[in-house]
Amino acid sequence: MTGTWVYRTPGIPDELFIQSDKVPGPTKEEIRVLTISKARLCEGSYVIDVGCGTGSLTVEAALQVTRKGKVFAIDDDEESITLTKKNVEKFGIQNIVQMILGKAPEVMTNLPKVDVVIIGGSSSLREVIRASYDKLKENGRIVINTVLLETSYIALNEIRKLNFKCVDVIQVFVAKGREVDTGMMMLARNPVIIISATKA
Amino acid sequence: MTGTWVYRTPGIPDELFIQSDKVPGPTKEEIRVLTISKARLCEGSYVIDVGCGTGSLTVEAALQVTRKGKVFAIDDDEESITLTKKNVEKFGIQNIVQMILGKAPEVMTNLPKVDVVIIGGSSSLREVIRASYDKLKENGRIVINTVLLETSYIALNEIRKLNFKCVDVIQVFVAKGREVDTGMMMLARNPVIIISATKA
Amino acid sequence: MTGTWVYRTPGIPDELFIQSDKVPGPTKEEIRVLTISKARLCEGSYVIDVGCGTGSLTVEAALQVTRKGKVFAIDDDEESITLTKKNVEKFGIQNIVQMILGKAPEVMTNLPKVDVVIIGGSSSLREVIRASYDKLKENGRIVINTVLLETSYIALNEIRKLNFKCVDVIQVFVAKGREVDTGMMMLARNPVIIISATKA
Amino acid sequence: MTGTWVYRTPGIPDELFIQSDKVPGPTKEEIRVLTISKARLCEGSYVIDVGCGTGSLTVEAALQVTRKGKVFAIDDDEESITLTKKNVEKFGIQNIVQMILGKAPEVMTNLPKVDVVIIGGSSSLREVIRASYDKLKENGRIVINTVLLETSYIALNEIRKLNFKCVDVIQVFVAKGREVDTGMMMLARNPVIIISATKA
Repeated sequence: MTGTWVYRTPGIPDELFIQSDKVPGPTKEEIRVLTISKARLCEGSYVIDVGCGTGSLTVEAALQVTRKGKVFAIDDDEESITLTKKNVEKFGIQNIVQMILGKAPEVMTNLPKVDVVIIGGSSSLREVIRASYDKLKENGRIVINTVLLETSYIALNEIRKLNFKCVDVIQVFVAKGREVDTGMMMLARNPVIIISATKA
Repeated sequence: MTGTWVYRTPGIPDELFIQSDKVPGPTKEEIRVLTISKARLCEGSYVIDVGCGTGSLTVEAALQVTRKGKVFAIDDDEESITLTKKNVEKFGIQNIVQMILGKAPEVMTNLPKVDVVIIGGSSSLREVIRASYDKLKENGRIVINTVLLETSYIALNEIRKLNFKCVDVIQVFVAKGREVDTGMMMLARNPVIIISATKA
Repeated sequence: MTGTWVYRTPGIPDELFIQSDKVPGPTKEEIRVLTISKARLCEGSYVIDVGCGTGSLTVEAALQVTRKGKVFAIDDDEESITLTKKNVEKFGIQNIVQMILGKAPEVMTNLPKVDVVIIGGSSSLREVIRASYDKLKENGRIVINTVLLETSYIALNEIRKLNFKCVDVIQVFVAKGREVDTGMMMLARNPVIIISATKA
Repeated sequence: MTGTWVYRTPGIPDELFIQSDKVPGPTKEEIRVLTISKARLCEGSYVIDVGCGTGSLTVEAALQVTRKGKVFAIDDDEESITLTKKNVEKFGIQNIVQMILGKAPEVMTNLPKVDVVIIGGSSSLREVIRASYDKLKENGRIVINTVLLETSYIALNEIRKLNFKCVDVIQVFVAKGREVDTGMMMLARNPVIIISATKA
């Protein structure tokens, strides 16, 4: 399927991503779609994806920004970078994505200013949000996904301290139908909190 | 703001749509985003939006298919067509959207084959799904949003009787944060079931 | 712990039930609590539990009706009856519970009139609801738990055909916190629809 | 209906509580049921209800602890105390409930040790949790309901600092069916986080 993905709207089915036992993810389709939507990507946007994991958000973002844009996929886990690379190749977007192995706040220093930072996960969330603020262009967007009760609080708190506007918080619960013998069983997925904001 | 919408990814904030007391809606941002995603729209896609209401799904779809595509917005309520027209004008997509006042299964007869049918609401759901099947090109997509316990069952049942593949059912619960004096209160939105499938 | 359970309010932690790989369940604590609540049990109530599985609803019900009441636990699966028996013994309620191996609509014929029927699961839902109606005393309560999109519709439809009043439908999504290294992760449980009504 | 409530299991329908425009609430039926369940009330339990509002949790608790127990209903809002008084009278539990107008951490000082503290709402959550810890008997239970993203974090954090065991966090999303012309519409209620723990 290399390089032949033709959907324009985000929302790649989960099973199309190459996966690995050593890397959690991919971010579930519906959460990816909402994350990309909150990022408000355009053709040509520059994007940093912090904690790229399997690379699913990186791939979705790259397909939206096209060759005119750029996605910097950061992870401090080597397996994640390797897996992201595989998925980048599968979707034929090597020209759009640059993978960076390293700790998020540090390796961001050398990157150019960007339109969007997506934070899928990080062990030093506060610092990454601050570094993201610095890297964002005016009116740039930050989008943070959290699954821990603590990180949603920390992220919101940090966002409020910085000069962000249009702060938006949603929590999303998705149940996905699976056909079983007796009918369509609705299987729950873990709730995710998506916090997004615009640099003032 | 006429005609100047530049986001490429779907997800127009709710408050940007012109609203009316006489027409329910708009479909909430997050539900619109997921609906458009399940529709898998491309540049040039032909789309029918059954029960267009405020026109919010019509607008999102039109921005994705661009001038190379077409959206047929159907509603049997005159107020809805008037409101959809206003929103179509606000977003500068008059060349992409054709509004049709009438009952969904009947007025669909004269339309060309399409890539996608989105059913936001209808009083004759079974018939509309069958008519949609007939109107869809091979590999075309159907996406149905339901908020009633009964209609999700009816829709799923009808989909199963016809020659559809890749049947996907999700239920989405979204809570949206609102800043109040004491903090970020999470306000629930009604759960929506989104059923989608591909014509075999 | 045999016979020493002292909580009066329903809500036995899941891990206190003896479990088995061959029997699904137990019904999760929060769903049990809401089910028992919708049943409006009193001291002395007579209860039928259709599809008792691990016996968790049977145990909760028995602790509420006390020795003045009775719970008939029905399942057509031998493993389930064996497991229910173990849990009944663990909680010291052998005098309150009578286990019955057999198909729900048939084996109900010989039972006395009851105050409450709880239907946790059944392969012949329509027939069981009709049989429950016949077995219920006036103002008796029926409570049905469903996890399939189809069965909630079927149950509601059947309830509407019979002479029930105070029909109540809720859907419950619970996420349960689990302490992980990085914080409190909220893990989703499958949504359950609980339909309850009073025999007119 | 004064004094004639006979349900033994918690779960009083919302509409049975006297309400007031000036006092938010009552806590919705399903949340009340789960809160009371997490409190693990017995006959004879002593309970403090902080932020009693309409008194709905106070009433449910009183019906569980019976005349052998006691419920101290605290609120610093006069309207809330007046409304709680009305509901206490309606349910005929004047002998069980003592209403206290005042700020929660202060007025708790004079109360005896209790088995359970329920915190429905408070403007000084940290202090109330600490005061609750002091007032609880060994193995006593604390149950905290929060609807703000911030307070769930603060509550969990405070609970962790004190000597509590069996910390349990659930988030509950309930949708409630309402019959409309076209069928059973599922209306969402705001998600609530319920944190409970046992004093070690």
